[in-house]
Amino acid sequence: MEVENLQIRLASRPVGLPRESDFEVIGRPIEDPGPDEVLVRNVYLSLDPAMRGWMDDRKSYLPPIALGDVMRGLTVGEVLVSNHSDFSAGDRVQGVLGWQTHAIATGAELTLLPPEVPLRVSLGPLGMTGLTAYFGLLEIGKPKTGETVLVSGAAGAVGSVVGQIAKIEGCRVVGIAGGPEKCRWLKEDLGFDEAIDYKNTEDLGASIKAACHQGIDVYFDNVGGPTLDTALRYINMAARVVICGAISQYNATEPVPGPANYLALLVQRARMEGFIVFDYRERYGEALAYLGTALREGDLHYREDVVSGLRNAPAALLRLFDGSNTGKLLVQLGPEP
Amino acid sequence: MEVENLQIRLASRPVGLPRESDFEVIGRPIEDPGPDEVLVRNVYLSLDPAMRGWMDDRKSYLPPIALGDVMRGLTVGEVLVSNHSDFSAGDRVQGVLGWQTHAIATGAELTLLPPEVPLRVSLGPLGMTGLTAYFGLLEIGKPKTGETVLVSGAAGAVGSVVGQIAKIEGCRVVGIAGGPEKCRWLKEDLGFDEAIDYKNTEDLGASIKAACHQGIDVYFDNVGGPTLDTALRYINMAARVVICGAISQYNATEPVPGPANYLALLVQRARMEGFIVFDYRERYGEALAYLGTALREGDLHYREDVVSGLRNAPAALLRLFDGSNTGKLLVQLGPEP
Repeated sequence: MEVENLQIRLASRPVGLPRESDFEVIGRPIEDPGPDEVLVRNVYLSLDPAMRGWMDDRKSYLPPIALGDVMRGLTVGEVLVSNHSDFSAGDRVQGVLGWQTHAIATGAELTLLPPEVPLRVSLGPLGMTGLTAYFGLLEIGKPKTGETVLVSGAAGAVGSVVGQIAKIEGCRVVGIAGGPEKCRWLKEDLGFDEAIDYKNTEDLGASIKAACHQGIDVYFDNVGGPTLDTALRYINMAARVVICGAISQYNATEPVPGPANYLALLVQRARMEGFIVFDYRERYGEALAYLGTALREGDLHYREDVVSGLRNAPAALLRLFDGSNTGKLLVQLGPEP
Repeated sequence: MEVENLQIRLASRPVGLPRESDFEVIGRPIEDPGPDEVLVRNVYLSLDPAMRGWMDDRKSYLPPIALGDVMRGLTVGEVLVSNHSDFSAGDRVQGVLGWQTHAIATGAELTLLPPEVPLRVSLGPLGMTGLTAYFGLLEIGKPKTGETVLVSGAAGAVGSVVGQIAKIEGCRVVGIAGGPEKCRWLKEDLGFDEAIDYKNTEDLGASIKAACHQGIDVYFDNVGGPTLDTALRYINMAARVVICGAISQYNATEPVPGPANYLALLVQRARMEGFIVFDYRERYGEALAYLGTALREGDLHYREDVVSGLRNAPAALLRLFDGSNTGKLLVQLGPEP
């Protein structure tokens, strides 16, 4: 039985792709929760591309992770001990509790999870992943029935949900992903109208033009770089370009050129807009109801890619950047409750 | 007395800055208007940065000017002969009648101008220039009282109106312009809060940061290139970046890097959006009422830079790109009526 809190801390700021030596694995005693605090055993840790940005010493929507601090990360787990009136031992909770097996949290840091939803799903389609897709697509992208929605990183956790919501909304959906298996999954299992294998096309622009034969009305971008720049060439009048992430750029060690085709925004009276899911906190309920219905009705499929053991988290994180994962990447830190 | 229609046609597509040899000056007989047509004598021709784009063989919001065609351009003039029931000889009209002293136009191509407004003003603050500033700033930029508005190309025809509308709307206004005289004009005559002389700063970013000490809420961009990229570093949460033009890039002969800092849109949940003034045609009346009031009340100042003679138009056009003009650039083609 585990009697310590295993933690992974940020040991040094990565240059380019993170290395194992940028992380430090430490065992710490499990502390007792103070007044109004809760002791949580983390069961799953979500690995997300945005984590790479948090490791840099750069102003962003969240402060950088300080050197020596536990790596930031969203987890789900169970309450072991509660001194807070809103939580009881055995409750399932979610919070940004970090890369560690145990955490002390205040009530404000925790969200109670419905016991009927599998813990992993609360990190995936019915969690931040699904919420990011929902608000990014519907609030920023604002797709209308019959419009063409192009998604990059389409086989990723967020991208795959974006495409499926767009289908529910009656759009023609085209995904960009790497490799024939991912593309097969998008078309055959998720119902995308077209999938572009960017690793096996000689001319991404021609592929986009062919797949989006009526042009792009909404482009949901998870990757940045040349994919964004190329997609801009094919946007329609009044198109919406949703900036969700830029995974192709996060490990760059040299300046990445910006989207030279941004003047398409002028010619097409279009907009490019970013968002952060946290801003929609007050509307999570509405989104979870939508996503829950889609899940129950078989309109929302997902894949999980579960790695076992906190010590494997650093290596697993890298799989987000080499394209070798499909769907939601999770680390299992301990047994399901 | 001029008995011919002097025209300037596009002789060849420019590479980089246009040269005199890209234009051809031709005399043609003045034709008689057909049924429902109108013969107009053009008095002023507006010179605009966008013309450079029209000379390229590239898809845009208007088709390219065909080789051998009269150069496209907005003019104001007087009706000489009318076979159309809505127009009479002596009426003052505006239309995209091109770089020529006389034109045959249909009724749909002409807008009747109010006789009490000086013709030149109908091409400036009470014309497309003012309308572009009005809709770009208010509809896309949506400035709120107390916000900071940064304008590039601020001493230009559009930029100078943008800044003054922003002042009317109660904003803190910062302009970027080239040279101390333009900056003096912005601050002393137009009431800008700050003016940044980009030609005399060693660090544009530091200058923007200092002048916009509470960050940028609206950035109205007329220039593109490194100025846009730098400004993106200082945008506030939910900022609006209005793409009106990119004069620094229009004559580029090599690919211009895009705005590498576009991810500020994500971090700041901000948007970058383009527009074309023609889309607001149905609301020109509202805008002209606003601009007319501002003009009468002394809240809207403007400069005109009038070049005499159609033959001087090509050389004058180049002055838009070397920074040597201030305010609205016009070519006078004939005597005021």
